[in-house]
Amino acid sequence: MNNCIFCQIVKKEIPADIVFENNSVVAFLDVNPTNKGHTLVVSKRHFADICETDDSIASEIFVKAKNIAHMIVRAVHADGFNLIVNNGSVAGQVVMHTHLHIVPRFRDDGLKQWPHKDISKEEMQEIKNKIASFLKE
Amino acid sequence: MNNCIFCQIVKKEIPADIVFENNSVVAFLDVNPTNKGHTLVVSKRHFADICETDDSIASEIFVKAKNIAHMIVRAVHADGFNLIVNNGSVAGQVVMHTHLHIVPRFRDDGLKQWPHKDISKEEMQEIKNKIASFLKE
Repeated sequence: MNNCIFCQIVKKEIPADIVFENNSVVAFLDVNPTNKGHTLVVSKRHFADICETDDSIASEIFVKAKNIAHMIVRAVHADGFNLIVNNGSVAGQVVMHTHLHIVPRFRDDGLKQWPHKDISKEEMQEIKNKIASFLKE
Repeated sequence: MNNCIFCQIVKKEIPADIVFENNSVVAFLDVNPTNKGHTLVVSKRHFADICETDDSIASEIFVKAKNIAHMIVRAVHADGFNLIVNNGSVAGQVVMHTHLHIVPRFRDDGLKQWPHKDISKEEMQEIKNKIASFLKE
């Protein structure tokens, strides 16, 4: 798509700190990093989000991400990492082109995991049944 | 592994709110949910983390997760979702058995995205070169 910033990076119309590239994905440093080495793995083909992404491309993004993450950990001397897909603006998706975040983590990085919510056993059961029934459709 | 809680769920030795299951993965509600419908997709085979997980199983986990997430969004009337792998205790991994979190998101859920850090262009360049060189090994 012409006005998509990630499509422009894929086509090398705008620069990016590319660390890996093959026929279907490109990985580059996030310009707004959460931590040193924060990298995005992006499909070369334009999909608006992960739901719209072909299974084969989604698979390639994830498998490459886990292997790249391992190398990023070595490169920046991280203690762990998160792989994150934000799907929809409410979930933090800013660019509407499929991508996965590799966020290296450090013991002193101060990033907090999200808190838990209290949900009753009855409601959990109800939610489970609803999801399971939708998955059987 | 005998003392692994997810292996015990896989073997049905302890109960869980299972929403989906096939030969290689099982998906069930997280007992400590961040939001309604928070689901874990777990490999049936024991791997300590995503780095140790076979590419084919990692691929299956991710592709199933994206398809299950779509149904969870419908079931709990969410506005989006995050797919998250926490790798290493510093990154929030609590159970040392490969799993992926599907966290449904709602406009009013109050969960905050992580902040950005200022990293100089020079340091970004240095990090990029280091990661890229490791990936060429």
